[in-house]
Amino acid sequence: LDKGDKKRFRKTYLDMHFYDQSTFYLTLDKDERLSIYTILEPNEMGDMFDTLEDDLPEIPEYLNEMDLSYASKMLNDMYDDNAADILEHLDKVDVDRFLGQLPRADANNLRGLLHYDTETAGGIMTTDYVRFHEFETAKEAIGNLKRFAETAETIYYLYVLDDHDDLVGVMSLRDLIMLDDNATLKDNMNSDIITVNVDAEQAEVAQVFRDYEFLAVPVVDHSNQMVGIVTVDDVIEVIDDESLQDYSGLAGVSVDETVQDNPVKAASKRLPWLITLLLLSMITATLINHYENLLAEASILAVFISTITGTAGNAGTQSLAVAVRRLAVEEINRNEFFKLVGKELLTGFITGVVTGASVLLLVGFWKHNFILGMVIGLAMCAAITVANLAGSLIPMLMSSFGFDPAVASGPFISTLSDLTSVLIYFSIAGMFLQSFVGA
Amino acid sequence: LDKGDKKRFRKTYLDMHFYDQSTFYLTLDKDERLSIYTILEPNEMGDMFDTLEDDLPEIPEYLNEMDLSYASKMLNDMYDDNAADILEHLDKVDVDRFLGQLPRADANNLRGLLHYDTETAGGIMTTDYVRFHEFETAKEAIGNLKRFAETAETIYYLYVLDDHDDLVGVMSLRDLIMLDDNATLKDNMNSDIITVNVDAEQAEVAQVFRDYEFLAVPVVDHSNQMVGIVTVDDVIEVIDDESLQDYSGLAGVSVDETVQDNPVKAASKRLPWLITLLLLSMITATLINHYENLLAEASILAVFISTITGTAGNAGTQSLAVAVRRLAVEEINRNEFFKLVGKELLTGFITGVVTGASVLLLVGFWKHNFILGMVIGLAMCAAITVANLAGSLIPMLMSSFGFDPAVASGPFISTLSDLTSVLIYFSIAGMFLQSFVGA
Repeated sequence: LDKGDKKRFRKTYLDMHFYDQSTFYLTLDKDERLSIYTILEPNEMGDMFDTLEDDLPEIPEYLNEMDLSYASKMLNDMYDDNAADILEHLDKVDVDRFLGQLPRADANNLRGLLHYDTETAGGIMTTDYVRFHEFETAKEAIGNLKRFAETAETIYYLYVLDDHDDLVGVMSLRDLIMLDDNATLKDNMNSDIITVNVDAEQAEVAQVFRDYEFLAVPVVDHSNQMVGIVTVDDVIEVIDDESLQDYSGLAGVSVDETVQDNPVKAASKRLPWLITLLLLSMITATLINHYENLLAEASILAVFISTITGTAGNAGTQSLAVAVRRLAVEEINRNEFFKLVGKELLTGFITGVVTGASVLLLVGFWKHNFILGMVIGLAMCAAITVANLAGSLIPMLMSSFGFDPAVASGPFISTLSDLTSVLIYFSIAGMFLQSFVGA
Repeated sequence: LDKGDKKRFRKTYLDMHFYDQSTFYLTLDKDERLSIYTILEPNEMGDMFDTLEDDLPEIPEYLNEMDLSYASKMLNDMYDDNAADILEHLDKVDVDRFLGQLPRADANNLRGLLHYDTETAGGIMTTDYVRFHEFETAKEAIGNLKRFAETAETIYYLYVLDDHDDLVGVMSLRDLIMLDDNATLKDNMNSDIITVNVDAEQAEVAQVFRDYEFLAVPVVDHSNQMVGIVTVDDVIEVIDDESLQDYSGLAGVSVDETVQDNPVKAASKRLPWLITLLLLSMITATLINHYENLLAEASILAVFISTITGTAGNAGTQSLAVAVRRLAVEEINRNEFFKLVGKELLTGFITGVVTGASVLLLVGFWKHNFILGMVIGLAMCAAITVANLAGSLIPMLMSSFGFDPAVASGPFISTLSDLTSVLIYFSIAGMFLQSFVGA
């Protein structure tokens, strides 16, 4: 790259969208990256870094191949929530090295953000928001906005503070634009302010965005002082995260596409659950083993083991999924708890009766043995009812004891339900043994 | 409510956020609602209706209890994407009744939106966006914005058209605010415009928002004419929809919280899948029945049926979940297809070998019979490999034939894998029958 090329490259690069810049940057090799750092200013680099996924495994390498002062300046020029997300993934030594280069106030600000739990409002908020005083006029506010527009993450909501720096109102830029020049913010702001607490779970924050369709929401601490804002782009990431967690829970595997390309790594992510569940299923095997005499007398019973365990497992998975989704959108108190469990029990029973009746007929006609059909049907009905109950009760209990209900995965419920289904099946079969073997 | 109360109510109500207004409205009975319609203007009612879920079952009732002209005015005052979403759920007769009251241009505009498939860019876009001419100056543009600010869904992106009404640039309000009064849009707009096609799948649109962190994106038709914009609030709904669909698919039940409260309705949503899968599992039963002689000779085989089917089903569910998530974020071409299937086969084999070896040891020590252990281990290994392959191949095939891969549910894969697992298990057991029964 000679000088003319550099200039042309710079123009072409800067005309691209930040995301397209990042797609391009990620295709470069180390030498090419090193020469890019000489062409672009740290803040221009930071604009692009703002769009990178913070958990990209190469980011520490990128930061360490830059000059220390270049990297620090870049981090400081990024939106502070994104910079904090990146620092979150670095060694403590590196964090200290980068922050050591920054003005003390900026370093402290980033350290403050690092301190919050990543899955709370504090962990996703930025402090780059625009503050105004309640006695400013519309004209003054627009003038001031121009100063902020370069650095703030959003200028579309104005946060209005009083003399004590307390948040007293919010105004959208849309409303501000429509005001007469001399109107004051105080007379026109919205003082019915929806805020989220700095410790609020990120899922709760996402719900506020869904309900109110905000582009940003102010975050307050325990003394109701405003400490930052959460913006809608971060909320989209939160919603993706949360749904990926639920989905992974139901599948019994952490569904993380970046790792799945390597079969050894992929297998190592799936095996812990599989082996755990294998052990649980060995208990089912010992249980069947316990009924070996029954099986020897009526080997026909073996034919329907997988029909009963499979169908009950399917029903349990359905009921689990419904319960987990419900828990994701609402808190459940003790009163509702019992009501919901009762309803799920009834749903399970209805499902069980219909499925049991179907299998009664199928087996009855196939084997010309309606007593056998009744045994299978009864067992199916009971097994489905129990699986449905377990599928909703277990996640609800986990949630009420403060665990994440999504951890009670689909495979766990269906493996557990194998156990209860087998127990139910052989108990019922044992009771009717004489009747259907004789028939 | 006397006159004074009405006035006070009006003020309190209008000071609330639209979402809070809707929460309040939904608690009212019919008489209360009828009196609210006399207090609030149609456009004030429309602001609140904009925040209602469009598939709320009560909406047709609400519209029909209003005066026809009031309801029509309200629909016309809503953002047109939301109005179209509501009309989508009404009878054709009602749609014609309401649209018949509107000025022809507005009615045609809404009819145009109704015509798009609901899960495409056209189905979620609004035509309430702000258009500017490329030769306008910053000052003129801000002046014009004030006119738009009342009705446009967002004024934070300005869409710049040339003399032929072609979209030639985009500018954010943030950039506009920083311009000098006399700067023209043409010289300062971004002409590297990211658009989505009107027929693009909604999931594709959501990905553009994730990548570029936009608040809105322009929608163009096949001749590249701009026809609307999609805003970020609708994209959040899309992301929720898509993840709910994937989650429901994996669970084998449509997870729709509003219906789950009624056990009969809930059971009726779950039964179709359960009964279908029951029929599939009856094929597995006939298969086991076919091996009855084998079972009679070695009833110990029955003990491990559920261990093998259960574990293979769990592995298949994992592999399915990974494949469905991958398909949700990327297109897969023929070349990658075979590479991915190969990788998944290898992942399945590694998983199968480790799990098979574990069960070999468990069964070997438990039954003091390592040949039996080897049979179970081999069968487990083969069953897991096949289940993994099916779990990734089936959704990928479905997707390449244009079906939604999420329909190949977890329960379907695990029931299907019961069938192959039983076949593999008894085939292998048959081969080694003499060795392990003798041992």
